[in-house]
Amino acid sequence: MLEELKQQVYDACMKIPAWKLAIFTWGNVSGIDRERGLVVIKPSGVEYDELRPELFPVVDLETGKTVEGNLNPSSDTPTHLELYRRFPSVGGITHTHSTWAVIYAQAGRGIRPYGTTHADHFGGEIPCTRAMTEAEIRGEYELETGRVICETFETLHLDPMHVPAVLVRSHGPFTWGKDPMDSVKCALTLEAVADMAFHTELLAASPQAANMDNVLLHRHFDRKHGPNAYYGQKK
Amino acid sequence: MLEELKQQVYDACMKIPAWKLAIFTWGNVSGIDRERGLVVIKPSGVEYDELRPELFPVVDLETGKTVEGNLNPSSDTPTHLELYRRFPSVGGITHTHSTWAVIYAQAGRGIRPYGTTHADHFGGEIPCTRAMTEAEIRGEYELETGRVICETFETLHLDPMHVPAVLVRSHGPFTWGKDPMDSVKCALTLEAVADMAFHTELLAASPQAANMDNVLLHRHFDRKHGPNAYYGQKK
Amino acid sequence: MLEELKQQVYDACMKIPAWKLAIFTWGNVSGIDRERGLVVIKPSGVEYDELRPELFPVVDLETGKTVEGNLNPSSDTPTHLELYRRFPSVGGITHTHSTWAVIYAQAGRGIRPYGTTHADHFGGEIPCTRAMTEAEIRGEYELETGRVICETFETLHLDPMHVPAVLVRSHGPFTWGKDPMDSVKCALTLEAVADMAFHTELLAASPQAANMDNVLLHRHFDRKHGPNAYYGQKK
Amino acid sequence: MLEELKQQVYDACMKIPAWKLAIFTWGNVSGIDRERGLVVIKPSGVEYDELRPELFPVVDLETGKTVEGNLNPSSDTPTHLELYRRFPSVGGITHTHSTWAVIYAQAGRGIRPYGTTHADHFGGEIPCTRAMTEAEIRGEYELETGRVICETFETLHLDPMHVPAVLVRSHGPFTWGKDPMDSVKCALTLEAVADMAFHTELLAASPQAANMDNVLLHRHFDRKHGPNAYYGQKK
Repeated sequence: MLEELKQQVYDACMKIPAWKLAIFTWGNVSGIDRERGLVVIKPSGVEYDELRPELFPVVDLETGKTVEGNLNPSSDTPTHLELYRRFPSVGGITHTHSTWAVIYAQAGRGIRPYGTTHADHFGGEIPCTRAMTEAEIRGEYELETGRVICETFETLHLDPMHVPAVLVRSHGPFTWGKDPMDSVKCALTLEAVADMAFHTELLAASPQAANMDNVLLHRHFDRKHGPNAYYGQKK
Repeated sequence: MLEELKQQVYDACMKIPAWKLAIFTWGNVSGIDRERGLVVIKPSGVEYDELRPELFPVVDLETGKTVEGNLNPSSDTPTHLELYRRFPSVGGITHTHSTWAVIYAQAGRGIRPYGTTHADHFGGEIPCTRAMTEAEIRGEYELETGRVICETFETLHLDPMHVPAVLVRSHGPFTWGKDPMDSVKCALTLEAVADMAFHTELLAASPQAANMDNVLLHRHFDRKHGPNAYYGQKK
Repeated sequence: MLEELKQQVYDACMKIPAWKLAIFTWGNVSGIDRERGLVVIKPSGVEYDELRPELFPVVDLETGKTVEGNLNPSSDTPTHLELYRRFPSVGGITHTHSTWAVIYAQAGRGIRPYGTTHADHFGGEIPCTRAMTEAEIRGEYELETGRVICETFETLHLDPMHVPAVLVRSHGPFTWGKDPMDSVKCALTLEAVADMAFHTELLAASPQAANMDNVLLHRHFDRKHGPNAYYGQKK
Repeated sequence: MLEELKQQVYDACMKIPAWKLAIFTWGNVSGIDRERGLVVIKPSGVEYDELRPELFPVVDLETGKTVEGNLNPSSDTPTHLELYRRFPSVGGITHTHSTWAVIYAQAGRGIRPYGTTHADHFGGEIPCTRAMTEAEIRGEYELETGRVICETFETLHLDPMHVPAVLVRSHGPFTWGKDPMDSVKCALTLEAVADMAFHTELLAASPQAANMDNVLLHRHFDRKHGPNAYYGQKK
């Protein structure tokens, strides 16, 4: 069942290693069939080069039970399901441990909008969730992770399609979109935006250095571009 | 029409993903036929691996209207056209969201010359434009972007062929040259120079650390290069 | 003898260049046959692309003497052997000069747990050894290196299978696992965790920058996603 | 003439793009035949993929005149020749604009020894030259560059085979060795060592961040490695 959706989730999943969003098995993608209330998700702990579309388990949106497939679904499945239940426009979800997004999650702070690369994709700051309580961690941890994400968007009155990404504190990013490929594209965009934001923050706090010697500047520019240039071959 | 120019713009455009100057569709290149007053530019929102030279639209330098091609030209077309109108020596223009150049644009500061890598290509500081006004942003935004670039060069009495690059504040770099390939080569050079400048500024503000133990230094050097070296195989 | 173990050590060894954990000959892997008390280890100073499984020497766990093979074993062999003698669950060991792990070793500090990427693999801080004494460096240096690693784990009451990695001060990482491939996977995981920890520490100490202009933010988001979006082609 | 040496210089030269030590034409290699007093060096401004061994010019060690070849030798030739004249053990020289080495040159400071990666290859700090005078820059600039390198080694009483690398201030690295390949290997080693030194200096000056929540640490470690682990597939 759901062969087309399995192919879509598989194709999106294979972008994780191709785009270097995670190594080993550190990331997963899911997609939903809203009419049937069924979700296709990466099997747990299987390396990307061993994946095939037919290996992806199908789980029930409401109960979380596997309705097809012999492999365990991702241990993060309850997080995905909670997001599908609470964010009705979402068609695909990606979770990775991509470097720059994880760094913001580990520092426990959101990614502010610093430029149009951010603004082209996210309509405001990408939020970081609050720390989870001991009860949440010891309890249904992965479900509680989904709940704390939804709480973050509610508290901030944020539309999840306006800012289709979140940083789970001390953990990493979840991104989503209209379908699985859209969600993994968002994961790569988030990574680029986080990289730029990190270095913008460092640069803004860093003094400029002393210019190079002006005579040396002109000597080098002129030996390549001046009237007596002697770099390269005669034209 | 303009088949040769379309090929040149296409070839330069394909360097954007090849040289990792942008992901997805985040960059564009154009070239001009000065005699006919026509500009060839990347179509808007088309991924690089779907491009072919014949898909590139041709627009009129003065009116900005598409005179050939079925696809919309880049949404940044009015910026390119303004630069061609005001900088008469320019034959090709590249716009990217390359990481290090964007970081300087987001921090809102120019790239000072710190070494000969810079001086071999740019005859002085690479400027960053002023913030755009609300009226400019809400109005003909992409045209105003071109105007603020030209204003920057006029205010600083800068020759655009002496410093063939600019950072648009909160946005990213535009680079140019005698032809399209020249402009994208300049984009890669800018990226290398920005990377080096960023880290030079951090390093100049950072204290040195304590040297390693001197006995350990000599032990390691000598086990490889000393008279009693025992690293590797007998020669 | 030990053809299967040689193949395992060889396969793990070839991950060092493939995963960019070291350049040239800067890394080695070993594996142990506990029943026979024999260790297979990379030959010293041989480049990875010249390696073949049958070239790997076999050394005696207790005496350190080569019992098979014409090539000198890695100069770090006495370190490996000491770890096998003192950590009886270890089946494979990897030593590299991977960038981020070396940086922590050079700064002489451990890698604190900052997020679940760390916690998924290491049950606590990854320790850095104390500085070695002049007598240790001038004496049986490589054996002493193994001893100071074991001392670190004893002093901290750390289970080496709970935290299967260490940073040797002013030097670099050693990692281990149930077999050679497990140990080199741990080396790559350590590198990812060290990279994230480094940047988390910088980010936590760095102020945020000023947000971009809000009008510009909405202009860019809306030209791509708003009701009057004009980026890209008509759908 | 000197076909074998030309092949050696060519082979070493092609490592510059392969090892990402420079883009475009930003680097060159030379090799010397000491008996004949002749030096083979990369032609100026020719891109790496257009090089062939027979294109490399041969220049006279003493006069600097081209004795064979139709192409101009590298504009840095007088620097190379001065090093060959003053450092009699040197058989090959490489100059690049590799990122991390340039950053130290631009900040005008040497690379201190922080760990065994450094000590395995360099017997002490890698020095940075003093700023050149206006007269030196306006005069025989490339020859003066060689002279200031030699002055640096003399002033510091440094053996150029003990520390086979230098940073020319505001410019970039020169490295050398017993033959051309040895010198380009040294350039890659220098780049790795400079990268590690840069981040060691930043890390040593940066405070640690707050550990992650201890309950979360154990939850994640245990869901993968504990007695009730539920990550992955049943074994």
